[in-house]
Amino acid sequence: MSQKTAVTPPAHTVPPARFSHGVRKGHILQVAGQVGFLPAVPGEPPAVAGPSLREQAVQTLRNVESVLTEAGASWDDVMMLRVYLTDVAHFAEMNAVYDEYLADVAVPPARTTVYVGLPEGLLVEIDALAVLD
Amino acid sequence: MSQKTAVTPPAHTVPPARFSHGVRKGHILQVAGQVGFLPAVPGEPPAVAGPSLREQAVQTLRNVESVLTEAGASWDDVMMLRVYLTDVAHFAEMNAVYDEYLADVAVPPARTTVYVGLPEGLLVEIDALAVLD
Amino acid sequence: MSQKTAVTPPAHTVPPARFSHGVRKGHILQVAGQVGFLPAVPGEPPAVAGPSLREQAVQTLRNVESVLTEAGASWDDVMMLRVYLTDVAHFAEMNAVYDEYLADVAVPPARTTVYVGLPEGLLVEIDALAVLD
Repeated sequence: MSQKTAVTPPAHTVPPARFSHGVRKGHILQVAGQVGFLPAVPGEPPAVAGPSLREQAVQTLRNVESVLTEAGASWDDVMMLRVYLTDVAHFAEMNAVYDEYLADVAVPPARTTVYVGLPEGLLVEIDALAVLD
Repeated sequence: MSQKTAVTPPAHTVPPARFSHGVRKGHILQVAGQVGFLPAVPGEPPAVAGPSLREQAVQTLRNVESVLTEAGASWDDVMMLRVYLTDVAHFAEMNAVYDEYLADVAVPPARTTVYVGLPEGLLVEIDALAVLD
Repeated sequence: MSQKTAVTPPAHTVPPARFSHGVRKGHILQVAGQVGFLPAVPGEPPAVAGPSLREQAVQTLRNVESVLTEAGASWDDVMMLRVYLTDVAHFAEMNAVYDEYLADVAVPPARTTVYVGLPEGLLVEIDALAVLD
Protein backbone atom coordinates (compact mmCIF):
# COMPACT_ATOMS: atom_id res chain seq x y z
CA MET A 1 0.00 0.00 0.00
CA SER A 2 1.48 3.34 -0.97
CA GLN A 3 1.60 6.24 1.47
CA LYS A 4 -1.29 8.57 2.10
CA THR A 5 -0.75 11.92 0.41
CA ALA A 6 -2.64 15.19 0.42
CA VAL A 7 -3.93 16.50 -2.90
CA THR A 8 -4.00 20.29 -2.98
CA PRO A 9 -4.81 22.11 -6.22
CA PRO A 10 -2.64 25.25 -6.23
CA ALA A 11 -5.51 27.69 -6.84
CA HIS A 12 -7.83 26.23 -4.19
CA THR A 13 -8.82 28.27 -1.17
CA VAL A 14 -7.32 27.24 2.16
CA PRO A 15 -9.73 24.94 4.05
CA PRO A 16 -11.37 26.50 7.14
CA ALA A 17 -10.07 23.64 9.31
CA ARG A 18 -7.41 20.94 9.34
CA PHE A 19 -8.60 18.89 6.39
CA SER A 20 -7.28 18.23 2.90
CA HIS A 21 -9.10 19.01 -0.35
CA GLY A 22 -8.13 15.53 -1.48
CA VAL A 23 -6.36 12.52 -0.05
CA ARG A 24 -4.91 9.60 -1.95
CA LYS A 25 -3.73 6.28 -0.62
CA GLY A 26 -3.15 3.33 -2.89
CA HIS A 27 -5.92 3.26 -5.48
CA ILE A 28 -8.34 5.30 -3.39
CA LEU A 29 -8.81 9.04 -3.86
CA GLN A 30 -11.23 10.93 -1.66
CA VAL A 31 -12.23 14.45 -2.63
CA ALA A 32 -13.47 16.66 0.22
CA GLY A 33 -16.75 18.56 -0.05
CA GLN A 34 -16.25 21.25 -2.66
CA VAL A 35 -18.32 24.40 -2.98
CA GLY A 36 -18.58 27.16 -5.57
CA PHE A 37 -15.51 29.13 -4.51
CA LEU A 38 -13.56 30.82 -7.26
CA PRO A 39 -9.77 30.33 -7.42
CA ALA A 40 -8.19 31.87 -4.35
CA VAL A 41 -6.87 35.42 -4.48
CA PRO A 42 -4.00 35.86 -2.01
CA GLY A 43 -5.03 38.03 0.91
CA GLU A 44 -8.73 37.86 0.04
CA PRO A 45 -11.41 35.69 1.69
CA PRO A 46 -12.98 32.95 -0.45
CA ALA A 47 -15.45 34.30 -3.03
CA VAL A 48 -18.43 32.38 -4.39
CA ALA A 49 -18.78 32.17 -8.18
CA GLY A 50 -22.19 33.82 -8.03
CA PRO A 51 -25.57 33.80 -6.34
CA SER A 52 -27.23 31.33 -8.74
CA LEU A 53 -27.34 27.56 -8.50
CA ARG A 54 -25.95 27.31 -12.03
CA GLU A 55 -22.90 29.46 -11.32
CA GLN A 56 -22.15 27.64 -8.10
CA ALA A 57 -22.76 24.17 -9.52
CA VAL A 58 -20.41 24.72 -12.46
CA GLN A 59 -17.68 26.10 -10.20
CA THR A 60 -18.18 23.29 -7.69
CA LEU A 61 -17.77 20.67 -10.42
CA ARG A 62 -14.65 22.53 -11.64
CA ASN A 63 -13.27 22.41 -8.11
CA VAL A 64 -13.91 18.67 -7.85
CA GLU A 65 -12.18 18.29 -11.22
CA SER A 66 -9.16 20.27 -10.05
CA VAL A 67 -8.63 17.82 -7.21
CA LEU A 68 -9.03 14.88 -9.59
CA THR A 69 -6.55 16.40 -12.03
CA GLU A 70 -4.05 17.25 -9.31
CA ALA A 71 -4.18 13.58 -8.24
CA GLY A 72 -3.66 12.33 -11.78
CA ALA A 73 -7.25 11.13 -11.98
CA SER A 74 -10.22 12.04 -14.16
CA TRP A 75 -14.00 11.85 -14.05
CA ASP A 76 -13.69 8.35 -15.47
CA ASP A 77 -12.21 7.23 -12.16
CA VAL A 78 -15.03 8.64 -10.04
CA MET A 79 -17.19 6.02 -8.37
CA MET A 80 -19.48 8.24 -6.32
CA LEU A 81 -20.60 11.82 -6.14
CA ARG A 82 -22.51 13.17 -3.16
CA VAL A 83 -24.52 16.21 -4.12
CA TYR A 84 -25.81 18.38 -1.29
CA LEU A 85 -28.38 20.97 -2.29
CA THR A 86 -30.31 23.36 -0.08
CA ASP A 87 -33.56 23.51 -2.04
CA VAL A 88 -35.55 20.79 -3.85
CA ALA A 89 -36.45 23.45 -6.42
CA HIS A 90 -32.81 23.36 -7.61
CA PHE A 91 -32.86 19.68 -8.57
CA ALA A 92 -33.74 20.12 -12.26
CA GLU A 93 -31.16 22.83 -12.88
CA MET A 94 -28.51 20.93 -10.97
CA ASN A 95 -29.16 17.92 -13.19
CA ALA A 96 -28.96 20.05 -16.34
CA VAL A 97 -25.58 21.50 -15.32
CA TYR A 98 -24.40 18.08 -14.20
CA ASP A 99 -25.42 16.31 -17.39
CA GLU A 100 -23.61 18.89 -19.51
CA TYR A 101 -20.50 18.69 -17.36
CA LEU A 102 -20.33 14.89 -17.33
CA ALA A 103 -21.51 14.41 -20.91
CA ASP A 104 -18.32 12.67 -21.99
CA VAL A 105 -17.89 10.32 -19.04
CA ALA A 106 -18.24 6.82 -20.46
CA VAL A 107 -19.41 5.17 -17.22
CA PRO A 108 -21.15 7.77 -15.05
CA PRO A 109 -20.46 7.53 -11.31
CA ALA A 110 -23.10 6.60 -8.77
CA ARG A 111 -24.68 9.57 -7.03
CA THR A 112 -26.74 10.51 -4.01
CA THR A 113 -28.53 13.84 -3.78
CA VAL A 114 -30.01 15.14 -0.54
CA TYR A 115 -31.17 18.51 0.76
CA VAL A 116 -29.34 19.95 3.74
CA GLY A 117 -28.34 23.22 5.32
CA LEU A 118 -25.15 24.92 4.14
CA PRO A 119 -23.38 28.10 5.28
CA GLU A 120 -25.12 31.27 4.15
CA GLY A 121 -24.70 32.01 0.48
CA LEU A 122 -23.81 28.47 -0.53
CA LEU A 123 -26.34 26.47 -2.55
CA VAL A 124 -24.43 23.31 -3.40
CA GLU A 125 -21.63 21.13 -2.08
CA ILE A 126 -20.23 18.03 -3.80
CA ASP A 127 -17.70 15.44 -2.71
CA ALA A 128 -16.32 12.46 -4.61
CA LEU A 129 -14.81 9.04 -4.16
CA ALA A 130 -12.56 7.78 -6.94
CA VAL A 131 -10.72 4.54 -7.54
CA LEU A 132 -7.64 4.99 -9.71
CA ASP A 133 -6.11 2.42 -12.03
CA MET B 1 -7.13 -2.93 -11.40
CA SER B 2 -10.12 -4.05 -13.43
CA GLN B 3 -12.14 -1.60 -15.47
CA LYS B 4 -14.92 0.50 -14.04
CA THR B 5 -18.32 -0.85 -15.02
CA ALA B 6 -21.87 0.35 -14.54
CA VAL B 7 -24.27 -1.88 -12.63
CA THR B 8 -27.83 -1.49 -13.85
CA PRO B 9 -30.56 -3.79 -12.56
CA PRO B 10 -32.91 -4.41 -15.50
CA ALA B 11 -36.10 -3.41 -13.65
CA HIS B 12 -34.69 -0.20 -12.16
CA THR B 13 -36.09 3.16 -13.17
CA VAL B 14 -33.91 5.34 -15.38
CA PRO B 15 -31.93 7.83 -13.22
CA PRO B 16 -33.03 11.48 -13.54
CA ALA B 17 -29.48 12.49 -14.47
CA ARG B 18 -26.24 11.06 -15.83
CA PHE B 19 -25.41 8.72 -12.97
CA SER B 20 -25.32 4.95 -12.56
CA HIS B 21 -27.34 2.95 -10.03
CA GLY B 22 -24.12 1.12 -9.24
CA VAL B 23 -20.49 1.28 -10.25
CA ARG B 24 -17.87 -1.39 -9.76
CA LYS B 25 -14.11 -1.11 -10.13
CA GLY B 26 -11.80 -3.72 -8.73
CA HIS B 27 -13.10 -4.82 -5.34
CA ILE B 28 -15.12 -1.65 -4.77
CA LEU B 29 -18.85 -1.43 -5.49
CA GLN B 30 -20.69 1.81 -4.90
CA VAL B 31 -24.49 1.78 -4.89
CA ALA B 32 -26.16 5.11 -5.68
CA GLY B 33 -28.85 6.53 -3.44
CA GLN B 34 -31.89 4.29 -3.80
CA VAL B 35 -35.45 5.29 -2.99
CA GLY B 36 -38.74 3.41 -2.75
CA PHE B 37 -39.50 3.24 -6.45
CA LEU B 38 -41.25 0.10 -7.68
CA PRO B 39 -39.81 -1.75 -10.69
CA ALA B 40 -40.07 0.46 -13.75
CA VAL B 41 -43.06 0.17 -16.06
CA PRO B 42 -42.07 1.17 -19.63
CA GLY B 43 -43.65 4.47 -20.61
CA GLU B 44 -44.69 5.29 -17.03
CA PRO B 45 -42.97 7.68 -14.62
CA PRO B 46 -41.36 6.16 -11.49
CA ALA B 47 -43.93 5.11 -8.88
CA VAL B 48 -43.27 5.00 -5.14
CA ALA B 49 -44.13 1.75 -3.31
CA GLY B 50 -46.52 3.60 -1.03
CA PRO B 51 -46.96 6.58 1.24
CA SER B 52 -45.71 4.89 4.42
CA LEU B 53 -42.17 4.73 5.74
CA ARG B 54 -42.46 0.95 5.97
CA GLU B 55 -43.48 0.48 2.35
CA GLN B 56 -40.77 2.79 1.11
CA ALA B 57 -38.06 1.40 3.38
CA VAL B 58 -38.69 -2.19 2.29
CA GLN B 59 -38.69 -1.22 -1.38
CA THR B 60 -35.57 0.92 -0.94
CA LEU B 61 -33.71 -2.01 0.64
CA ARG B 62 -34.91 -4.24 -2.20
CA ASN B 63 -33.55 -1.72 -4.69
CA VAL B 64 -30.16 -1.64 -2.95
CA GLU B 65 -30.20 -5.43 -3.01
CA SER B 66 -30.96 -5.50 -6.74
CA VAL B 67 -27.81 -3.50 -7.41
CA LEU B 68 -25.77 -5.78 -5.16
CA THR B 69 -27.15 -8.87 -6.87
CA GLU B 70 -26.59 -7.44 -10.35
CA ALA B 71 -22.95 -6.85 -9.39
CA GLY B 72 -22.52 -10.38 -8.06
CA ALA B 73 -22.42 -9.12 -4.48
CA SER B 74 -24.61 -9.64 -1.42
CA TRP B 75 -25.40 -7.89 1.85
CA ASP B 76 -22.42 -9.72 3.34
CA ASP B 77 -20.16 -7.53 1.19
CA VAL B 78 -21.68 -4.25 2.33
CA MET B 79 -19.39 -2.11 4.46
CA MET B 80 -21.55 0.97 4.87
CA LEU B 81 -25.14 2.04 4.52
CA ARG B 82 -26.15 5.67 4.57
CA VAL B 83 -29.75 6.07 5.59
CA TYR B 84 -31.41 9.40 4.89
CA LEU B 85 -34.75 9.94 6.56
CA THR B 86 -36.93 13.04 6.56
CA ASP B 87 -38.43 12.74 10.05
CA VAL B 88 -36.88 11.70 13.36
CA ALA B 89 -40.24 10.10 14.21
CA HIS B 90 -39.48 7.45 11.56
CA PHE B 91 -36.31 6.18 13.24
CA ALA B 92 -37.89 3.33 15.25
CA GLU B 93 -39.88 1.96 12.33
CA MET B 94 -36.92 2.28 9.97
CA ASN B 95 -34.85 0.24 12.42
CA ALA B 96 -37.59 -2.40 12.71
CA VAL B 97 -37.78 -2.83 8.92
CA TYR B 98 -34.00 -2.72 8.66
CA ASP B 99 -33.42 -5.33 11.37
CA GLU B 100 -35.88 -7.72 9.73
CA TYR B 101 -34.34 -7.19 6.32
CA LEU B 102 -30.75 -7.68 7.47
CA ALA B 103 -31.51 -10.41 10.01
CA ASP B 104 -29.30 -12.97 8.26
CA VAL B 105 -26.26 -10.81 7.61
CA ALA B 106 -23.44 -12.31 9.67
CA VAL B 107 -21.41 -9.11 9.99
CA PRO B 108 -23.74 -6.12 9.77
CA PRO B 109 -22.40 -3.12 7.86
CA ALA B 110 -21.59 0.20 9.47
CA ARG B 111 -24.35 2.78 9.14
CA THR B 112 -25.01 6.49 9.44
CA THR B 113 -28.53 7.87 9.73
CA VAL B 114 -29.32 11.55 9.31
CA TYR B 115 -32.45 13.61 8.65
CA VAL B 116 -32.54 15.62 5.46
CA GLY B 117 -34.92 16.95 2.87
CA LEU B 118 -35.95 14.68 -0.01
CA PRO B 119 -38.15 15.30 -3.06
CA GLU B 120 -41.85 15.44 -2.24
CA GLY B 121 -43.37 12.05 -1.47
CA LEU B 122 -40.08 10.36 -0.61
CA LEU B 123 -39.41 9.46 3.02
CA VAL B 124 -36.17 7.49 2.78
CA GLU B 125 -33.06 7.18 0.64
CA ILE B 126 -30.24 4.68 1.16
CA ASP B 127 -26.86 4.23 -0.51
CA ALA B 128 -24.21 1.60 0.05
CA LEU B 129 -20.51 0.93 -0.23
CA ALA B 130 -19.44 -2.67 -0.68
CA VAL B 131 -16.08 -4.40 -0.91
CA LEU B 132 -16.23 -7.63 -2.88
CA ASP B 133 -14.00 -10.64 -2.43
CA MET C 1 -9.17 -10.26 0.07
CA SER C 2 -9.40 -10.89 3.79
CA GLN C 3 -12.74 -11.54 5.46
CA LYS C 4 -15.08 -8.79 6.57
CA THR C 5 -14.96 -8.33 10.33
CA ALA C 6 -16.91 -6.19 12.77
CA VAL C 7 -14.98 -3.70 14.88
CA THR C 8 -16.60 -3.16 18.27
CA PRO C 9 -14.84 -1.08 20.92
CA PRO C 10 -15.64 -2.74 24.26
CA ALA C 11 -16.95 0.43 25.94
CA HIS C 12 -19.19 1.50 23.05
CA THR C 13 -22.96 1.61 23.48
CA VAL C 14 -24.95 -1.07 21.68
CA PRO C 15 -26.20 0.27 18.30
CA PRO C 16 -29.96 0.90 18.10
CA ALA C 17 -30.23 -1.38 15.06
CA ARG C 18 -28.38 -4.19 13.31
CA PHE C 19 -25.25 -2.30 12.31
CA SER C 20 -21.61 -2.39 13.37
CA HIS C 21 -19.64 0.51 14.84
CA GLY C 22 -16.89 -0.40 12.42
CA VAL C 23 -16.32 -2.89 9.63
CA ARG C 24 -13.02 -3.90 8.12
CA LYS C 25 -12.39 -5.84 4.96
CA GLY C 26 -8.98 -5.92 3.34
CA HIS C 27 -7.45 -2.45 3.56
CA ILE C 28 -10.80 -0.70 3.98
CA LEU C 29 -12.16 0.34 7.37
CA GLN C 30 -15.52 2.04 7.61
CA VAL C 31 -16.51 3.72 10.86
CA ALA C 32 -20.25 4.13 11.45
CA GLY C 33 -21.73 7.47 12.41
CA GLN C 34 -20.54 8.23 15.93
CA VAL C 35 -22.20 10.64 18.33
CA GLY C 36 -21.27 12.08 21.70
CA PHE C 37 -22.24 9.09 23.83
CA LEU C 38 -20.09 8.41 26.87
CA PRO C 39 -18.73 4.89 27.43
CA ALA C 40 -21.64 2.54 28.06
CA VAL C 41 -22.73 1.77 31.60
CA PRO C 42 -24.29 -1.72 31.76
CA GLY C 43 -28.02 -1.52 32.36
CA GLU C 44 -28.18 2.21 31.59
CA PRO C 45 -29.35 3.87 28.37
CA PRO C 46 -26.71 5.76 26.32
CA ALA C 47 -25.77 9.10 27.88
CA VAL C 48 -24.54 12.13 25.94
CA ALA C 49 -21.29 13.76 27.11
CA GLY C 50 -23.07 17.06 27.67
CA PRO C 51 -25.39 19.62 26.15
CA SER C 52 -22.68 21.70 24.45
CA LEU C 53 -21.25 21.30 20.98
CA ARG C 54 -17.75 21.21 22.44
CA GLU C 55 -18.50 18.37 24.86
CA GLN C 56 -20.26 16.34 22.19
CA ALA C 57 -17.67 17.00 19.50
CA VAL C 58 -14.75 15.90 21.69
CA GLN C 59 -16.60 12.73 22.74
CA THR C 60 -17.63 12.01 19.16
CA LEU C 61 -14.03 12.27 17.98
CA ARG C 62 -12.99 10.00 20.87
CA ASN C 63 -15.59 7.48 19.77
CA VAL C 64 -14.34 7.56 16.18
CA GLU C 65 -10.83 7.08 17.54
CA SER C 66 -11.90 4.09 19.63
CA VAL C 67 -13.11 2.33 16.50
CA LEU C 68 -9.88 3.18 14.68
CA THR C 69 -7.80 1.90 17.58
CA GLU C 70 -9.84 -1.28 17.93
CA ALA C 71 -9.19 -1.95 14.23
CA GLY C 72 -5.46 -1.36 14.59
CA ALA C 73 -5.71 1.91 12.70
CA SER C 74 -5.02 5.55 13.60
CA TRP C 75 -6.04 9.01 12.43
CA ASP C 76 -3.19 8.82 9.94
CA ASP C 77 -5.16 6.16 8.06
CA VAL C 78 -8.34 8.21 7.80
CA MET C 79 -9.19 9.35 4.29
CA MET C 80 -12.53 11.03 4.91
CA LEU C 81 -14.56 12.41 7.77
CA ARG C 82 -18.20 13.31 7.34
CA VAL C 83 -19.26 15.86 9.92
CA TYR C 84 -22.98 16.34 10.45
CA LEU C 85 -23.95 19.37 12.49
CA THR C 86 -27.41 20.67 13.30
CA ASP C 87 -26.65 24.40 13.34
CA VAL C 88 -24.44 26.56 11.13
CA ALA C 89 -23.64 28.60 14.25
CA HIS C 90 -21.63 25.61 15.53
CA PHE C 91 -19.18 25.57 12.61
CA ALA C 92 -16.44 27.71 14.17
CA GLU C 93 -16.42 25.84 17.48
CA MET C 94 -16.52 22.48 15.71
CA ASN C 95 -13.46 23.53 13.73
CA ALA C 96 -11.65 24.68 16.88
CA VAL C 97 -12.26 21.33 18.61
CA TYR C 98 -11.42 19.46 15.44
CA ASP C 99 -8.16 21.31 14.82
CA GLU C 100 -7.01 20.65 18.38
CA TYR C 101 -7.94 17.00 18.17
CA LEU C 102 -6.24 16.38 14.82
CA ALA C 103 -3.26 18.66 15.45
CA ASP C 104 -0.73 15.86 15.09
CA VAL C 105 -2.12 14.17 11.99
CA ALA C 106 0.54 14.60 9.32
CA VAL C 107 -1.81 14.38 6.35
CA PRO C 108 -5.27 15.55 7.40
CA PRO C 109 -8.19 13.59 5.94
CA ALA C 110 -10.65 15.05 3.47
CA ARG C 111 -13.88 16.25 5.07
CA THR C 112 -17.44 17.24 4.25
CA THR C 113 -19.57 19.21 6.67
CA VAL C 114 -23.32 19.60 6.24
CA TYR C 115 -26.22 20.63 8.44
CA VAL C 116 -28.93 18.06 9.05
CA GLY C 117 -31.45 16.95 11.61
CA LEU C 118 -30.34 14.58 14.37
CA PRO C 119 -32.26 12.90 17.21
CA GLU C 120 -33.17 15.29 20.04
CA GLY C 121 -30.22 16.25 22.21
CA LEU C 122 -27.55 15.36 19.64
CA LEU C 123 -25.61 18.20 17.99
CA VAL C 124 -22.99 16.33 16.00
CA GLU C 125 -22.42 13.02 14.24
CA ILE C 126 -19.20 11.97 12.50
CA ASP C 127 -18.32 8.93 10.40
CA ALA C 128 -15.02 7.97 8.82
CA LEU C 129 -13.49 6.02 5.97
CA ALA C 130 -9.95 4.74 6.47
CA VAL C 131 -7.53 2.86 4.28
CA LEU C 132 -5.05 0.80 6.27
CA ASP C 133 -1.54 -0.11 5.25
